[in-house]
Amino acid sequence: MISFESDYIEGAHPAILEALAKSNMEALSGYGSDSYTKSAKEKIALACGLSKKQSNQVYFLTGGTQTNQIVIDTMLRPFEGVISAQTGHVSVHEAGAIEFTGHKVLTIPAHEGKMKADELDSYISDFYADGNHEHMVFPGLAYISQPTEYGTLYTKKELTELSQVCRKHKIPLFMDGARLGYGLMARDSDLTLPDIARLCDVFYIGGTKVGALCGEAVVFTKENMPAHFDNLVKKHGALLAKGRLLGIQFDTLFTDDLYFKICRNAIDRAEELKSIFREKGYKFYLDSPTNQQFVILENSKMTELQKSVRFSFWEKYDESHTVVRFATSWATTKEKIEELKKLL
Amino acid sequence: MISFESDYIEGAHPAILEALAKSNMEALSGYGSDSYTKSAKEKIALACGLSKKQSNQVYFLTGGTQTNQIVIDTMLRPFEGVISAQTGHVSVHEAGAIEFTGHKVLTIPAHEGKMKADELDSYISDFYADGNHEHMVFPGLAYISQPTEYGTLYTKKELTELSQVCRKHKIPLFMDGARLGYGLMARDSDLTLPDIARLCDVFYIGGTKVGALCGEAVVFTKENMPAHFDNLVKKHGALLAKGRLLGIQFDTLFTDDLYFKICRNAIDRAEELKSIFREKGYKFYLDSPTNQQFVILENSKMTELQKSVRFSFWEKYDESHTVVRFATSWATTKEKIEELKKLL
Amino acid sequence: MISFESDYIEGAHPAILEALAKSNMEALSGYGSDSYTKSAKEKIALACGLSKKQSNQVYFLTGGTQTNQIVIDTMLRPFEGVISAQTGHVSVHEAGAIEFTGHKVLTIPAHEGKMKADELDSYISDFYADGNHEHMVFPGLAYISQPTEYGTLYTKKELTELSQVCRKHKIPLFMDGARLGYGLMARDSDLTLPDIARLCDVFYIGGTKVGALCGEAVVFTKENMPAHFDNLVKKHGALLAKGRLLGIQFDTLFTDDLYFKICRNAIDRAEELKSIFREKGYKFYLDSPTNQQFVILENSKMTELQKSVRFSFWEKYDESHTVVRFATSWATTKEKIEELKKLL
Amino acid sequence: MISFESDYIEGAHPAILEALAKSNMEALSGYGSDSYTKSAKEKIALACGLSKKQSNQVYFLTGGTQTNQIVIDTMLRPFEGVISAQTGHVSVHEAGAIEFTGHKVLTIPAHEGKMKADELDSYISDFYADGNHEHMVFPGLAYISQPTEYGTLYTKKELTELSQVCRKHKIPLFMDGARLGYGLMARDSDLTLPDIARLCDVFYIGGTKVGALCGEAVVFTKENMPAHFDNLVKKHGALLAKGRLLGIQFDTLFTDDLYFKICRNAIDRAEELKSIFREKGYKFYLDSPTNQQFVILENSKMTELQKSVRFSFWEKYDESHTVVRFATSWATTKEKIEELKKLL
Repeated sequence: MISFESDYIEGAHPAILEALAKSNMEALSGYGSDSYTKSAKEKIALACGLSKKQSNQVYFLTGGTQTNQIVIDTMLRPFEGVISAQTGHVSVHEAGAIEFTGHKVLTIPAHEGKMKADELDSYISDFYADGNHEHMVFPGLAYISQPTEYGTLYTKKELTELSQVCRKHKIPLFMDGARLGYGLMARDSDLTLPDIARLCDVFYIGGTKVGALCGEAVVFTKENMPAHFDNLVKKHGALLAKGRLLGIQFDTLFTDDLYFKICRNAIDRAEELKSIFREKGYKFYLDSPTNQQFVILENSKMTELQKSVRFSFWEKYDESHTVVRFATSWATTKEKIEELKKLL
Repeated sequence: MISFESDYIEGAHPAILEALAKSNMEALSGYGSDSYTKSAKEKIALACGLSKKQSNQVYFLTGGTQTNQIVIDTMLRPFEGVISAQTGHVSVHEAGAIEFTGHKVLTIPAHEGKMKADELDSYISDFYADGNHEHMVFPGLAYISQPTEYGTLYTKKELTELSQVCRKHKIPLFMDGARLGYGLMARDSDLTLPDIARLCDVFYIGGTKVGALCGEAVVFTKENMPAHFDNLVKKHGALLAKGRLLGIQFDTLFTDDLYFKICRNAIDRAEELKSIFREKGYKFYLDSPTNQQFVILENSKMTELQKSVRFSFWEKYDESHTVVRFATSWATTKEKIEELKKLL
Repeated sequence: MISFESDYIEGAHPAILEALAKSNMEALSGYGSDSYTKSAKEKIALACGLSKKQSNQVYFLTGGTQTNQIVIDTMLRPFEGVISAQTGHVSVHEAGAIEFTGHKVLTIPAHEGKMKADELDSYISDFYADGNHEHMVFPGLAYISQPTEYGTLYTKKELTELSQVCRKHKIPLFMDGARLGYGLMARDSDLTLPDIARLCDVFYIGGTKVGALCGEAVVFTKENMPAHFDNLVKKHGALLAKGRLLGIQFDTLFTDDLYFKICRNAIDRAEELKSIFREKGYKFYLDSPTNQQFVILENSKMTELQKSVRFSFWEKYDESHTVVRFATSWATTKEKIEELKKLL
Repeated sequence: MISFESDYIEGAHPAILEALAKSNMEALSGYGSDSYTKSAKEKIALACGLSKKQSNQVYFLTGGTQTNQIVIDTMLRPFEGVISAQTGHVSVHEAGAIEFTGHKVLTIPAHEGKMKADELDSYISDFYADGNHEHMVFPGLAYISQPTEYGTLYTKKELTELSQVCRKHKIPLFMDGARLGYGLMARDSDLTLPDIARLCDVFYIGGTKVGALCGEAVVFTKENMPAHFDNLVKKHGALLAKGRLLGIQFDTLFTDDLYFKICRNAIDRAEELKSIFREKGYKFYLDSPTNQQFVILENSKMTELQKSVRFSFWEKYDESHTVVRFATSWATTKEKIEELKKLL
């Protein structure tokens, strides 16, 4: 049985386990005040084109939903909600984690997982034009994911336009980068980390799905980390006593471009996987340039394939077809792709 | 200047003010434990076809959003959200009051303000079919308004179907009746209070917009009032020390069918208003059988009319037209309608 | 049966009912945008020594717990809690309404219901001295009640000291004035409304317990009303559609010093009541200069008295004695006091 | 520089790192559905004297505050709060994480960190005796920590009494076991894991401070895990995608009694440390039988010692003395103790 079920089926990149083992008996102080965390923050600030001093604007959290919840709750004012594409993770697949903090998710149309700058602009403009808007939730933050939940990517032009709309309306732009590395390494992607740091007000660099055991690195790009952020993280139940666990992992990922290299592997394997499916005459649900590939399978074929391959059910396509997801990752080998080829 | 701005522009029906004055110096105990509140609850239980004992399932709150917030928050379990039509008041015009309590509003399509039973059924069925649904907000309550925010009404057949879908999926059905009286008295309405009490699990009879200074009467129809409801109301900041204010008003409204009589007036005036607009060649945005009428005005006509009549902006229709709302109420006189006629 | 059960057993001062009746059929716009509300705000600003322009810093809410909840929630930052004396209403008798908004109530010792300036100062200083304080709730607001839950009063000297401590630590001082009028009119009270407006950052003038059917007038004294306060009030479910109900009542109470005159009556009756109890040899639990009197009754005497007088159980004193409360109000007559005298 | 700063200064027990490395490239499904998590749950159920089937009542979370927050929020009904000793972690050092979920922490006196059964009993009885209790927060859960924040322990007799009080009043008993292993292995402790599982309704076995990189194992002992617990954990932002990280760690800790063995080391080292301090004439703040030792240092001595040893400031003792904490752990070596001895 081979598995393309998700990009979090393996543990961590071996270099991370080595770093954890090597530093294991060092006595380090807790709650993110250790030297590895400090080093990781500095490396990330540097990779984002920020100053070393701005490394205090980098913060490590444990998982994606937790990060979305904390960033959104702490960036919004009490009368504001967050705008998301209808298919956005925060709107659909976080079990109400945003609303749990008292904030509404305001949705606008999704186009293969993406929001359009002009639709965002209209949404906000219409809000203020509505005579009744004092009885409504104010748009206070725009949430996007890169890659999106459908594996698609914003181009530099699109992100620039979104950023301009946000600045025009004075709301911050937040990018969920749970799989950011796979987006950065996609073949035609024209966005760099410094671009993202410049265009977004806050974003995070995913670790959990990109080679770490757990961990997401939040970057506040405009010296806009909320006051007493440590305390707010604690209040959300999200402060790790052994902050080293996150610090060491990101320190490793951002040493010698490891983060980028392992993401390239995922992309290379995904491109191979795409070729194989195409050659075999399969249809894709949409064209994804990243590590998640959405294939339309005949139901009978799906049942047959499930005997030897694991993949994710995504949604019903029609009576006789289903959309399923195959994910590659930092850990996917060429051999696994070859094996899949034989089964198709 | 005459006003059709809303159905809450006047104070209270004179009989209410008289009752308040008459009882004013009686020493009554607080927090809804007084005799007027008791009497009002019994009259309402009776009008709903419930037993006298079930009068302990009637509860008075102050306003509509407060009532929606408290009912939804106390009826939902922590992993559940409330399903509403996209145009539902709880989804759009309550400033996030539902989300403030930690619950998501789950939306389905609106058809002139109404949800369709089959779409509700599909929504819930699809939710359970989704392999990912443990990461999603469970549908836990269906919210409808009668009349809707667009003045439209569910028929007995439609409400029965919604009720059946809710029972099939074991979720309660909640009716926002902020303007319920106007719906009950609409000319072709085939729903009675006992029908509503039978088909819904909880609903409320609006006072604020139907002749009272303030107040909504919540009715839990299946002996399903949440435990320690008094305490929960207090926790929401909604327990009035002088509960008599609500009790006396509803006691008056439910004496000698006053509630129904004054609603009939609103409907009669609305029908006259409709005829006038029709005669003068105006177009309606939709066909409303209740006290709220949505008219499409040419923008220049609108500007002219605003000099002598107050009405509400609803939404932009197209570049040169606007949808506006004219509301009648228990207090609207024939004279006022005549005056409007002259201005059109 | 005569009742001294509380100060909210009667309806409203007759002048209020008259004003409601007189204005009843005027078409007024909703949500506090009417002329009576505007007038009431201006009169209150004036009575507080504020400018007419600052009348936009006056806001009407419905009840005491609601007001405490909204003021505290909207004045605190997310990492802050409110400091209260251990016996404070927000700490003990609001069913967790403050915690419902996500904020902790931090308690310091109570001295007959009051907090001491030096203990408040120590509490805050110790907080910042604690090496661990980033894991604790920051003190963000000081809450006091005037009169306190025990009928006692802060003197001008005491309030000045509290105010100085708050300014030193840069946290606002909030006074719960649910019974403020009775405090202002107490015989030896040396605090005026302008004093309170000067020394506190926000406070409210109680209506519910001081002659109104419902209503509390919040005053933000330093142009510090939270942004989009209307929206926040709506989000808390506390925005009345018929704002006139609150506006007309406060407009009446602040016309010709009515608020102060009716409070003087309560104080005069309370002083008579105190004399009678003293003459008859009863002991007081503490010395209250306001309308709430706490008497220690032998249990057998209490049982006897309950046959003809209503009063409130307060707390057990010892095995054979109980502390009970007798409350006078704007509505208490000399005749009622005489009647009580006969029963003692 | 040697460090006794806390019990979370080192990484993980080497056996854990080995297990993580060994399983690293296995493809495992996410969110706690993997085989290691299943195995760990079974081993823990067994160690607690529960049935194998009850292993579905074991759940892994990431950290202590997170666990307290989730257990308390999901076990309480909306009108309830949690009772804690005044020094309880949930009351003092969690940045308001409990209140963030809308629940009050109700405090009773602490006796060297412990609550007394009779005081708990009185608190609940008095609550129901209070005429006003419908306006108060209902006691809904009792929270204790074992060892307490002061290193002290409940005896079997004390825990039995607390359990009886809780059952009498029908509220669950919750034990915070962030350092449970150190309590179980304390020399005179007469409580076993099965005792705790029998006497408590829910408790957790700490990993973060007891040899793991992170992780706490919650055990619901009466088949009382809240419905849809996975979903509720997600809603709190606490569901790890790579659940294996927690499963593998606890599987290792509960293989061959590793958890107990490493805790014994901490106790042995703590006893040595106590002897050394006593021999040198130092005084203890209280008598702790576990891995946290609270010593009273002269301020000048403290300053001197800080040059070569790290320990934690606890609280001011008097003008010239300070209470400080020395913590041993699974990782503390005999050599480190010897080194400390030389410095005293």
